This record gives sequence, structure tokens and C-alpha cells, in this order.
Amino acid sequence: MNYRTEKDTMGDVQVPADKFWGAQTERSRNNFKIGPESSMPHEIIEAFAYLKKAAAFTNADLGVLSNEKRDMIAKVCDEILEGKLNDQFPLVIWQTGSGTQSNMNVNEVISNKAHVNNGGILGEKSEIHPNDDVNKSQSSNDTFPTAMHIAAYKKVVEHTLPSVEKLRNTLHEKAENFKSIVKIGRTHLMDATPLTLGQEFSGYVAQLDYAMKAIGNTLDHLQEIALGGTAVGTGLNTPKGYDVLVAKYISEFTGLPFETAPNKFEALAAHDAIVETHGALKQLAVSLYKIAQDIRFLASGPRSGIGEIHIPENEPGSSIMPGKVNPTQNEAMTMVCAQVLGNDTTISFAGTQGNFELNVFKPVMAYNFLQSAQLLGDACISFNDHCAIGIEPNEPRIKELVEKSLMLVTALNTHIGYENAAKIAKTAHKNGTTLKEEAVNLGLLTAAQFDEWVKPEDMV
Amino acid sequence: MNYRTEKDTMGDVQVPADKFWGAQTERSRNNFKIGPESSMPHEIIEAFAYLKKAAAFTNADLGVLSNEKRDMIAKVCDEILEGKLNDQFPLVIWQTGSGTQSNMNVNEVISNKAHVNNGGILGEKSEIHPNDDVNKSQSSNDTFPTAMHIAAYKKVVEHTLPSVEKLRNTLHEKAENFKSIVKIGRTHLMDATPLTLGQEFSGYVAQLDYAMKAIGNTLDHLQEIALGGTAVGTGLNTPKGYDVLVAKYISEFTGLPFETAPNKFEALAAHDAIVETHGALKQLAVSLYKIAQDIRFLASGPRSGIGEIHIPENEPGSSIMPGKVNPTQNEAMTMVCAQVLGNDTTISFAGTQGNFELNVFKPVMAYNFLQSAQLLGDACISFNDHCAIGIEPNEPRIKELVEKSLMLVTALNTHIGYENAAKIAKTAHKNGTTLKEEAVNLGLLTAAQFDEWVKPEDMV
Amino acid sequence: MNYRTEKDTMGDVQVPADKFWGAQTERSRNNFKIGPESSMPHEIIEAFAYLKKAAAFTNADLGVLSNEKRDMIAKVCDEILEGKLNDQFPLVIWQTGSGTQSNMNVNEVISNKAHVNNGGILGEKSEIHPNDDVNKSQSSNDTFPTAMHIAAYKKVVEHTLPSVEKLRNTLHEKAENFKSIVKIGRTHLMDATPLTLGQEFSGYVAQLDYAMKAIGNTLDHLQEIALGGTAVGTGLNTPKGYDVLVAKYISEFTGLPFETAPNKFEALAAHDAIVETHGALKQLAVSLYKIAQDIRFLASGPRSGIGEIHIPENEPGSSIMPGKVNPTQNEAMTMVCAQVLGNDTTISFAGTQGNFELNVFKPVMAYNFLQSAQLLGDACISFNDHCAIGIEPNEPRIKELVEKSLMLVTALNTHIGYENAAKIAKTAHKNGTTLKEEAVNLGLLTAAQFDEWVKPEDMV
Amino acid sequence: MNYRTEKDTMGDVQVPADKFWGAQTERSRNNFKIGPESSMPHEIIEAFAYLKKAAAFTNADLGVLSNEKRDMIAKVCDEILEGKLNDQFPLVIWQTGSGTQSNMNVNEVISNKAHVNNGGILGEKSEIHPNDDVNKSQSSNDTFPTAMHIAAYKKVVEHTLPSVEKLRNTLHEKAENFKSIVKIGRTHLMDATPLTLGQEFSGYVAQLDYAMKAIGNTLDHLQEIALGGTAVGTGLNTPKGYDVLVAKYISEFTGLPFETAPNKFEALAAHDAIVETHGALKQLAVSLYKIAQDIRFLASGPRSGIGEIHIPENEPGSSIMPGKVNPTQNEAMTMVCAQVLGNDTTISFAGTQGNFELNVFKPVMAYNFLQSAQLLGDACISFNDHCAIGIEPNEPRIKELVEKSLMLVTALNTHIGYENAAKIAKTAHKNGTTLKEEAVNLGLLTAAQFDEWVKPEDMV
Repeated sequence: MNYRTEKDTMGDVQVPADKFWGAQTERSRNNFKIGPESSMPHEIIEAFAYLKKAAAFTNADLGVLSNEKRDMIAKVCDEILEGKLNDQFPLVIWQTGSGTQSNMNVNEVISNKAHVNNGGILGEKSEIHPNDDVNKSQSSNDTFPTAMHIAAYKKVVEHTLPSVEKLRNTLHEKAENFKSIVKIGRTHLMDATPLTLGQEFSGYVAQLDYAMKAIGNTLDHLQEIALGGTAVGTGLNTPKGYDVLVAKYISEFTGLPFETAPNKFEALAAHDAIVETHGALKQLAVSLYKIAQDIRFLASGPRSGIGEIHIPENEPGSSIMPGKVNPTQNEAMTMVCAQVLGNDTTISFAGTQGNFELNVFKPVMAYNFLQSAQLLGDACISFNDHCAIGIEPNEPRIKELVEKSLMLVTALNTHIGYENAAKIAKTAHKNGTTLKEEAVNLGLLTAAQFDEWVKPEDMV
Repeated sequence: MNYRTEKDTMGDVQVPADKFWGAQTERSRNNFKIGPESSMPHEIIEAFAYLKKAAAFTNADLGVLSNEKRDMIAKVCDEILEGKLNDQFPLVIWQTGSGTQSNMNVNEVISNKAHVNNGGILGEKSEIHPNDDVNKSQSSNDTFPTAMHIAAYKKVVEHTLPSVEKLRNTLHEKAENFKSIVKIGRTHLMDATPLTLGQEFSGYVAQLDYAMKAIGNTLDHLQEIALGGTAVGTGLNTPKGYDVLVAKYISEFTGLPFETAPNKFEALAAHDAIVETHGALKQLAVSLYKIAQDIRFLASGPRSGIGEIHIPENEPGSSIMPGKVNPTQNEAMTMVCAQVLGNDTTISFAGTQGNFELNVFKPVMAYNFLQSAQLLGDACISFNDHCAIGIEPNEPRIKELVEKSLMLVTALNTHIGYENAAKIAKTAHKNGTTLKEEAVNLGLLTAAQFDEWVKPEDMV
Repeated sequence: MNYRTEKDTMGDVQVPADKFWGAQTERSRNNFKIGPESSMPHEIIEAFAYLKKAAAFTNADLGVLSNEKRDMIAKVCDEILEGKLNDQFPLVIWQTGSGTQSNMNVNEVISNKAHVNNGGILGEKSEIHPNDDVNKSQSSNDTFPTAMHIAAYKKVVEHTLPSVEKLRNTLHEKAENFKSIVKIGRTHLMDATPLTLGQEFSGYVAQLDYAMKAIGNTLDHLQEIALGGTAVGTGLNTPKGYDVLVAKYISEFTGLPFETAPNKFEALAAHDAIVETHGALKQLAVSLYKIAQDIRFLASGPRSGIGEIHIPENEPGSSIMPGKVNPTQNEAMTMVCAQVLGNDTTISFAGTQGNFELNVFKPVMAYNFLQSAQLLGDACISFNDHCAIGIEPNEPRIKELVEKSLMLVTALNTHIGYENAAKIAKTAHKNGTTLKEEAVNLGLLTAAQFDEWVKPEDMV
Repeated sequence: MNYRTEKDTMGDVQVPADKFWGAQTERSRNNFKIGPESSMPHEIIEAFAYLKKAAAFTNADLGVLSNEKRDMIAKVCDEILEGKLNDQFPLVIWQTGSGTQSNMNVNEVISNKAHVNNGGILGEKSEIHPNDDVNKSQSSNDTFPTAMHIAAYKKVVEHTLPSVEKLRNTLHEKAENFKSIVKIGRTHLMDATPLTLGQEFSGYVAQLDYAMKAIGNTLDHLQEIALGGTAVGTGLNTPKGYDVLVAKYISEFTGLPFETAPNKFEALAAHDAIVETHGALKQLAVSLYKIAQDIRFLASGPRSGIGEIHIPENEPGSSIMPGKVNPTQNEAMTMVCAQVLGNDTTISFAGTQGNFELNVFKPVMAYNFLQSAQLLGDACISFNDHCAIGIEPNEPRIKELVEKSLMLVTALNTHIGYENAAKIAKTAHKNGTTLKEEAVNLGLLTAAQFDEWVKPEDMV
């Protein structure tokens, strides 16, 4: 491989000749060989492109950057957003906890690419300085948190929430379709009083509605951005009005309602907004787990399980047992939920560990957040498309189970009291008979009364 | 000990003769010898008293319970709330996951105590049946979740939030008082550009404001109660209008804005509201950890640490090192936060494990939630009273550190560029000299320029 | 209440007149009103009694304490161990993270009680000084970790492990008894090839065997004690040979194989032994969860679940559904496991947070560890006595399910190939028929071949 | 793209024409679009190659597979191990929880590639059937757990442990080099009695020694493999002696001591070995966190922190603060540890969720385990090479801090008692003077006595 010499304040570094990055990126690349394939999430790089462009516009508006430099910077930012420079960001998550070298990676690429765009030769000193121009009015300490919020907010509102809603709507439609199908209820896994299959599914819909609302509640905090705080939150080296204006430009470029954080010290030293929104994503995982778990148990069988519903058969289920079909989408979903619970532990732990003016667990928090938001959204769509939309009731089985249930006896409580009702149920259970038989045998009511009082369809 | 015979649908049980509880309580007491001292939280028992009274009033209003029975039930509920029957609830957390026997414990105590209140003798059959009267229009499956929400909501709004606010206000006052004290900033634990001590504390205030807002956002869900769902959410065996009216009575009796849950299936089968609010309590713990950690490091020393602030000396710090004083309140606070993080794992895990119509991890969720809410509130008050209010700046130390800092060089970036500024800082670091000396030596600016441009008080 | 005046190096304190504790205990009692009912675990106090007695004997042997003082100290330690002074240890978990005041609580009680034992009057200066005599050759920093290891080790080997073994033996007996009962297997919750009920239970036995071995593997580390390290691990102020001898005395007094830690710096600054053993307790919780979960699903029904086994009916299961019986022991067990998983998060987090020469999360680590070890042991005994020993197969149900299973077709793979076998299974599933019918219909084998090749009892 | 038609028991599927995978792989690829870039770890694919080859040899030895087929299968396995078929395994982690389609992916690739190796044309029916030949005597249910153990064991013993040992040896060398450097101790972050820098570092060495031992203790369980259990643990469709022999072949091919699991039911239905070893990896993370955290605090400054040690300067630390150098390796390390703690939550949770004969959280467990083992190993090497080996004491600073410490007073306890010693320390603290001055002023000892008794170098 060919190399060229780049330099920074520590001296010379050999950099691959055809790459736009510079000395600091290369140092980090060599110093952090941790986790093959664990690149800084591309969403973070994109967020940097938005914010670098916004900073250039703001700096120009406020008179500290020329319009020519602004446009040169903005052009490279657009190239990054178009995906043209994807191979220029080689750094990993497991680097400095402030993400400084990823900020510098972006600064260096913009600086060098702008020079080339301007007709220059890679390796010459660019007219756009990575620190003095691209990073003007910025610090890693306020850019990286800003990139975290941009990337996180975007992912949640553009991917996670719409995906959850899609699944919610399918389940709601199922709930409507199944609203007249009376089935046995189960509490403690044991036979209980009946409800309709639609009612059961309505509980899932309610869970997802609450989860979406909970996520929505956290977004106010997440839409606040740190930019303008620079090194420690004081805004040193920024022109007056910078923080508000740069947030406005970021909003304009992303189409999302970002605002400047009212307290920049908090915004650098803590990442409670990430903790907060991920807490709500974790709640979503809790809900989805329950739903996916229920559905696979309801579909269990075909002959030795519960078997009250059918789910789509998508692939042969076993490499040894011919003809087996498994609830594979539910398994993918529940694995994703398990991942999100662990990610929440990581994020909460990392959130506690800020010291003084800076939390230096930024990349690990960003990585876990974005993984959770992506996987939950993906899993909702996959589960929706390959499982939920195909759920059908197994009506003969449902009918069979509800009819032989002993818990219909509960309807008699208000007529003959809890203790007499219990006697009927226990006797029928012991004798393997029906409630009606034993009710009459025990002389507690007549067959006609039984038929009048015990109607599953009236119990739901 | 003397015993009397009580019976339930399974047969006779010997019960301590002087206790009001009955057969089912006694069975559970014998069957679950798990965790000495791990009683069902008393807040749950109190919440049951509120809801049993509310149910009695509602049942009477709707014509399914006589006013006489209503008043007999309500009287015992009031006695429970007055703390007169504290020794009548012997069951532990680690029982059935629906809390059924704790519900029956309350039913039995009310039944038997009402009989005694009415002039009866303990052991006779009460005119108030534990199931048919006290539990009328109810199931463990809807009463226990209701008790969870009542207890959790009450604890959070009456204890946790006011305690956090108290601490927040003290820290805000400190931030105001310290707003002119310029100090060195620290990022990556390394010297950085200056800020004021007040700005540093304002970050803590912002964290607590966000945490309180986040908790507040979750309360809508927590104020919804399951009562009226009975066994599986259908409301079987409840009179029409019961759910709305019983929530109204609970609101009236507690003075808190409870409402009937719109979807009772969700309210029994999942406890996402508990997951949601505890997620916000966990966020609070994350914030408090950062604050308490910072303060103890800032107070470290007295001679070999940072020592920028003084915290109150509350007790001798060491059994072997004479004269030592330690940041003990910070340690209690950070231990509480560690507990809350673990409790969140338990609650999230338990939240995923509902099956079909019922989540049977109710007691463990209630226990962890109430512990977190109690400890966080207690720790905020203790930290406030014994640490935060006594924080004082160590101004000579603060001044000494800021003056010798090399990171003041950042103020020169906009005058001589990042690279020249770096050269000055590195040379001063290497030579153990001051920035000013080296700036002049290197011929990059004059002494007068240095004095004009590098003013810590202008950098904050 | 009457008070007397006690003093420490910070000045006078009013102490309840009838209590043996002194100034430092009282300070802590007033300064840490966190968590009502969250007393320092009594196991820690007992462990302190062992170690204070051992220190007194060692100090006397090594000539730095008189035999008279040794005996006076030892006598009070014995009183603590006999439970005679249980009301003298009022401090909570949420105090200083070194447990210093709990160490001083023990020192003060021993000092004052010894004086009274010697005919003195409470409130007079004792001839046994709490620091100079009781705490001689010690620091909180080495006594508290020692107490943690004594209490933890004792609880695990005397309670947790024997309880697990009891349950393991019951399950093993069941596995033996059930070894000829052929039943349907279930993978992905779906019908699979058969196995015996005994084989299924043998998996549970294996899990518990591994868990016990894993716990055992960690005990080497846990049996090392910090005593002799004093304030920072150097052993300052201890006579030569002290650390080895004091460990020997602790071993003698407890009957357990404690040894002095080879590196005292690690023993004070980190609590990796607690992390390690609790990690194994968490593994046990993982195993027990799986077992208890399986058993409740196998027992589900009685008519609409799996119903392959019967578990004991211990209490009425529902306050509204007459005759319902629930897997309540399984629920208690799984709730305990959920708690232990959360406790592991707390302990791991706390374990990371040592700084320099001391980890100051000692009480919270001790509390969580002891809770886990106690609850797991209790839950194993309760589950054993009230559930496992009463498990019985429901043989008719087992037979019914295995016979109609489609996965018996797997036995044909080696005769007719996976694809033909799949065709038979799918056709039978579609038509609701038997494998044999379709095998013959499809012309793939004869009825005689089917009977020869497909024998559930040969497939296990 | 060109496609060819492949088929399985569910029908035809279009597969990219140039890929060796078949119908089932393609189905999974289409059905599980979850987590871009979250491919099944390549270590799992490699492990499959080992086990498929071992199975072929075993099947041939036991007479159920021809030697020709054995060799054809083995040849493709070797190609996989040589990395020649890396683009043939497109499936993601978030698929079926048994990893069935990844097993089939391997089966299909071997089948088709063998056919091509044999001169056939891709798309024709291979003479090696993916199920009947490649998967002979196997099931996904026993192959995937076997692959998990092979991959996990290999990663731990070939990567994680040697990396930890490397760091351990460096720290040990530092401990030796620093053994005479007396420094101030710190407990509760406050000045305490002295120790040597070597002693401090020896604690880190001890932590890593314990961690390596703990990991080692778990390996017995991890080296047991499930192969031979087939679908549910009974070993259906395997020839006699298969399980022992196949383990022997795997040992031979990998050079690692794998053994057949004595209980195959446990080996499929639970993954406690993964839970166990990851628990020990989590302990390692706890230890590394403490070490990395200490080192960054000891290196903090350069002028306003503790500054007792120097760590290497690897890259410019700030994009805005010129000349700043940060503890970036420590940050990468602590972020990795935070990740491992979260992974442990995921793995423990997943470990509890096995049902009946199969745990269907296999891929998520494998993914988290391998990530932890890889990252911990990588981070140890990176931290070693770029930080630990370059640690140097800042002796002037160390000397300055120890000399002015007040906690040297502890040496006087045994001469003048704890209370008098406390008086000296408190007076010196109040007056900002030295211990010696105040000791003499207070008339408690002479200057000569002070010099004789208070020698930091004698206190360590």
C-alpha cells in the first residue's frame, strides 16, 4: 500500500495515500485495534455531516467563516450524506470515550476532500483547516453528543416508532376480527374464566400504545443538542447567538425539531437523555417479549400444545424432524428483546460514569442505543410481515377447550356462593366429569339453571 | 401458642387463636418460609385497605352489598390505615406471583375483625364473608395490580419527588452562590478550560430537573388501575359501572387522581406501568450517581486530592486513621443508586414474563419498585441535609488550580491558531513553566497580548 | 427516653441510656435515615463477633493485648453469637461504604458491655477501649471485608448448597422413578421426538449438579480474608504473624476453612470474590428458573394446558375462581430468581467502583449477596417440600399426547430419507390423520414396516 | 442478479445463481431482515466446519456414511476453515433461536460445493444430501450448541486468556519496578496511610490472577459438547458410540480438549455453561474496570489532578484544547467493560428462557459471548501495548503528596493512642501545619520521637 505523510501537533504519521483522513484518524486506527467489525455506527457519521454543515453555515452567518469556506465544507458534508465517502471512516467504537478521533476523522476528511474538490492534490495543505475551519466554534465534547442526539432521534422517529405502529395496527385488526371468538382464559398458566381472543389481542395493542407513548414522552429531552457548549459547556470560542442558530440549521437540514439545550454543562457531562429514551425502548422490549411469548405458546403444538391459533409456516423447522414448523419470528423477536435488556444495563451503567465536565462513555452509549432502536424496528416489521398478519384462530380447538373448562363455574359465584361453586369444580375435576353433571348431582342447582347461568359468551 | 380451627375450600387449618387472619393466610404462612424478614411491603397492605373500602362503597352504591356490610368493611379498612392491625399481615413477598394470599389475608382480617367489631367472637363464622362480601366484584388478579399502582404512585408523588426537589433546590442555591467562582474544568479527568463552580452545579440541577420531568411523564400510566377487570380482565361478576366508580372512590379516599384503566387485559397481564415509572426512577439514580460521585471527587483530599470544595464532617471517618473524615453521604447515595440499577434489571425481567391473562411476578415487582422509590427519596433527604447544604468552596485551592492550568491556552486559538497554541502548551508542560512565559519565548505573542487574551473569567 | 453522654474524637453525643452503643453508632443512626427496616444483615454482625474474638486471641498470643482484655472481649463476642445483644446494632445498610460505623458499633458495644460485665456502670469509661483494644490490629477497611467473606461463605456452605442438594436429590429420585415413562418432546414449544419423563428430569438434575460445582469452584477465593491488611493493605499497626494467626482463629471459631488473603491490597480495594461467587449464585438462579418454569408448564391445565404432570395442591388458587389450584411454589421460585438476577447487576456494578485502596460499596454488596444466598436456599427447600416431592406423572395424558404426535416420523429418516418422511408428516398434519395411515396411503412403506420402525419406546 | 431454483420440503425458492447455499438459507435470508450487518459470528461458522467434518469421519467410522462422502464433506469443511467460502454464510443472528437455518446453511453449502468440487454443476442435485448426508446423525439442536461451545472455548483459551496474561505480566513487572516508591494511600478518595506504588499495582495483578483462575474454573463445563443428542437429547438416529467418537474427532481437529456432555438433555435445553463462563468474563470486566479507572485517576492532571503517574501520550486529546492528552486507552477499556456487563444481563436472561427440550436463544447467547471474549482480549492487548507498558511514576509529585499527608499520624496510635493522634491530625488540618509541629506544640511527644516513629517507609 502507498502512504503519504500527514502531521498533527504530535508529529508525522504515515497515512494510506488514497484516503482522505489525516494524522489523528490514522493514530486512532493504529492505537485501537479493538473489536474487528465494530465500526462507529454510520448513523453517527451522517449526523456529523449534518452538524458540520450547520456549523459552517452558522459560522458564516455570524461572520467568523467566509462563505467560500462554508460552501466547500458543505459540499463535502453533502457527499457524506449521499454515501459517497463511506470508506473514509475507519475508526471503531472502542476508542476514546469522547469520540474525539471520530470528530477529527470527519474534520480531516472534510478538509482534505474539500481541497481535492477545489482542484488540489491530496497531501498538500488544505485551505480548509480541520480544526480552525471545519471544527470552528466546536469541540468533540459538544459535537459528539450532538451527533448522538441527531442519530438517536432520527432512528427512533423514522424507524422504530413507525415499525411499532405497523405491528400495532396489525394486532389491532386481529383484535377486531377476533372479537367474537370466546376462548378459555389462563392465569398462572391454569384454566381460568373465558374471554374473547379479540380481548386477549387488545391487551397487546394497549401495551404497544403505552410503549409508543412512553417513547414519545422522552423525545423532548432527546431533541435538545449540546452544540455551542464547546469544551466544557461554557461556549468558549463561539460567536454570540451561535448555539441557537446552529440548532436551527440542524433542524432545517434534518427536517427534525432539534433545539439548543438550555444547560450545556448537563449536555456534555451526562447523557441522561440517552438513558431516558433507551429506558422507554427497554419498556417496548418488555412489551414485545410478552406479546411474542404469548403468541408462540398459543400456537404451540400442533397436537401436544395449546394450539389455539395458527401462525404462518415460513421455513422447514428442523434439520432432523421432517415436517416441523416453528415460531421462528417469535424467537427472533424475543432474542432482540433480550439484547435490548442487556443494552439497557450497559447504557445505564455508562450513564452513571460521567466525571466532572464530561461523560466519556459516548461511543458505547451511542452504539447500544442505535442497535436497540434498529433491531426493535426491524424485528417489529419482520414479526408483522412474517407472523402477525398471518395469525388465524383455530376455532375448533378454541371451542373444544372452552367447553370443557371447569372455570366456567365462576359464573355461579353470585348465585350459589364461592364455596358451593368450588365444591362443584373440585368434584368435576376429581371425577373427570362436567360441571353441569356435578352441579346437578350435588343438588346445588338444576340443569336448566346451569344452562341459564353458565354461558361462556356472557362471561366475556 | 393457642390455635383455633379455620377452614377454606380445601379443609381445616389451625390458626393462632389471637390473630384475625384465616385459613388461606395460614396456609401461605406455612408454605412459603422464604426470606425471613421479607414481609409484603406495608404500603401494599395500606393500598389494599383503600381499595377494599372503595369496593365496598361501590358495591353498596350499585346495590350488590348492603350499607351495613359496607360500613363494617370500611371500619376495618380505616383501622388498617390507622396502623392498628399491623401485626395481622404476616405473609412474605415470595409467595404466589399473583399475591392471591395477601389479598385473602386482607379479606380474612376484614371479615374476622368486622365480626369482632360487631360483638362477635373470633372463630365464629363472620357475617362478612371474605370472598363473597369483602372480595365482592374483585379478584386477586385485579386487586393486587391496583394495590401496586396505588402504593407506587403514592410513594413516588408523596415521597420520592418532593425529596428530589428538596435536593434540587439546595443545589440550585449553591449554583447561584457559586456563580462567580472561576475554576478549572476537567474533561477525561484532565485539566481543561475553566468554568464557574456555579456552572458546574447548574449541570446537576439540570439533571434533577430532567429526572423529575421524566418521572412525571410516566405517571399518567401509573394512575390507571385494574380494578373492575376481576379474574381475566373481562370484569366478570362486577355490576355495571363498577370500574369507573371504584376508581372515583379510590381517588377520593387517597386524594390522588386514579382512573380506571381503559384496557383491563393489559392491566392484569402486563405491568408495563411499573416498568415505565421504574425506568424513570433508574434514570434518577443515574443522575444522582453522577452528582454524588463528582462531589466526592471535588471534596477529595484534604491534601492529596482535588480539594476544591468542603463537605460537612459528620462522623469520624476511620477506626484506625485518626482525624480522617469521609464523604459518607455520597457513599450511601451511590450505594442506593447501585441498588436501583439492580432493581431495574429485576423489574424489567419480571415485566417480560407475563403469560396469557396474568403476570405472576407482582410481589417481586412491587417490592423492588417500592424499595427504589423509598431509598431514592430517603437518600436525597439525607444527602441534602447532611451534605449538600453544607458544601462550601475552597476558594484558595480553586484559585491556585485555575491559575496554573495549561488549558487556558485555548483562548488563543482564535488569535494564533490551534497549532501554535498547542506548541505553547506543550512547551510549558515540558518545561514546567507558565503559558505566558513560553508564549513570549516562542515569539508568538507579547506579554501584553497574553494578558489581554487569556483571562479565565472571560472564558466561562 | 433517657440519654447519656458519649464522646468520640468529634465531641459529645447523646445516646439512649440503656444501649451499649456509643457516640459513633449514634452519629450514624442520626445521619443515615435511609431505608426503614434495612438493617445491616445480622449475619454481618455475627461475623464481626467471630473476627473480634479472633483478633483478641491473636493480639494476646502476640503480646499486644493482655489475657484479661482478651477474655473480656471474647465474652461479649460470645454473647453476640448467642443472640443476646440483637437489639444493639441499629445501623442501616445505607451508611458509609466501608461499613466503618458498623465496625465501630461492634467495637463500642463490646467496650461498654465488657465494662458492665466487669461490674462497671454503663456510661463510665470502659477499661476496654473501642479503638485501642477491641479494634487493635484492625481497621474497618479489613474487618468489614472479612466479615463479608465470613458471612457469605457460611451462608453459602451452610444454607444455600445443602438446600440445592436437597432439591437435586428429590429431582434425581423423580428422574429415576420416571425413567420408563415415554412422552412427547417439545422443541420451540412444538411437538418433537419422544423422550422419557425421567430423561427430561435428568436434565434438571444435571443443571443443579453443574450449578453446585460452579459455586464450589468459587469458594477458594471467598475463603480468603482481608484481616491483617488494616487501613490500606500494608498491615500497619499489626504485630508480625498476625494475619495468618487471626485467620487460623477464625477458622477454629467458625469451623470453616478460612485463610489469610495473599494480597491484602486486592482484598480491600476490590470485592471480586463476592462478584465471583454471586456470579455462580446467579447461574444457579438461571438453572432454577428453567426448571421451575418447565414444571409449571408441564403441570398446566387441568384441561386446557399440557397437563403431563400433577403438582401438589397447597392452597386455594383464586379468590374469585372456585376450585382453582396454581403452581405457587414455582412462582415464588421464579420471583426469587428474578431478584437474584437484579442483585447480580447491583453487585457487578458495585464491584467495578472501587477506587485506589478501597471499594466503598461494601454494605450494598454484602446485603445483596446474603439476600440471594438466603432466598435461593429457602426457595429450594420450599419448592422441594411443597412441590417437587409431590410431582406425579399424569400417565394417561402423557400416553395420549405421545401417540398422536407427528414427530415420530423422524424414526423413518434412516429408512426412507428426510424428504419422504416430511411428506408423510405434512400430509397427516393437513388431513388430521395418523402417520401410519398416510405412510401407507402414500405408498412409502407398509403398515408392518411402520409398526416395526416407529416405536416411541425405541426412540428415547 | 441471476437466480437458480432450489427446493426444500416446502417447495421452490429462487437462489442467487452463484451462491452455494440452498432453499432454506434463502428463506431465512428473506424472512429475517433484522439488524443490517449483524451476521452470525464467523467463529460459529468455523466451529460448524469442524463439527461437520468430525461428524462425517465418525459416521464413516461407524459405517453409516461412505468414505467417499466423508472425504467430499471434509474437503469443503477445510475450505471453510481456510476462509475460502466466507461469502456463503449470509444469515443474521436474529433468526430462529435454534440456529436451524445456519446449520442448514452449512449443510447446503457443503452439499452444493462438494458437488461442484466433484465436477458437477451448481443447481444439479448433489450426491451429498444436505440433511441425509451432511447432517447425518445430527440435528440443529445438538450441532448449534456444539458450535457455541467450540467457538466460545476457542476464543477464550486462544484469545482472551493469553491477552489478559500479557497485561497481567506487564502490571506485575510494574509492581516489581515500583516496589520501593512510597506514596500516599487513598481510601474513600481521602488521604490515608502510605503504601508503595508497587503494592498498589500488586493488587491489580492479584485481581487479574483471580479472574484468570475464575475463567479457568468454568472451562470444564464449556468443553462438554452436545453432539450426539440430536433432536431432543436422546440421540435418536445416531449409531452406537457416536457421541464419544465425534467429540474425539473434534478434539483432534481443533487441538482442544472437548468431551461429550454426560447429559445431552441439559446440553440442549439449557446453556448454563455459556452463562457460567460469561459470568467469569464479567468478573474479569469488573476487575479491569477498577484497574483502568484507578490508572486514569492516578494519571489525572497534569496540574490539577492527582498526577502520580505518567501514561503514554498517544494522540492529541482535544479538537479545541491544544496540547491536551487524555487517558484514551482507559476509556476504551472501561467502555468495553460496560459492554460486557450488559452482555451478561442478556446472556443470563436468555439462559433462563429455555423451555422443555430446547433453549431457543442460542444465537443471541453466542453473539454476546463471543463479543465479550473478543473485546476483552483486544482491549487487554491495546491497553497493554499503548498504556500499561509505558506507565512511569511521577516521583517528585508522589514524594510531595506523601510528605504533607496527615494520615502518617496513624503510626502514632500504638504510642500515644487513637484519641491523641486524632487531636494532632485535626489541629494540623485546621491550622494548615504539619503533624510534627502540632505534635510537639500539643506536648504529646518530642520532635525526636516523631522522627523516630513516623517514617512513611516503615509504614508500608
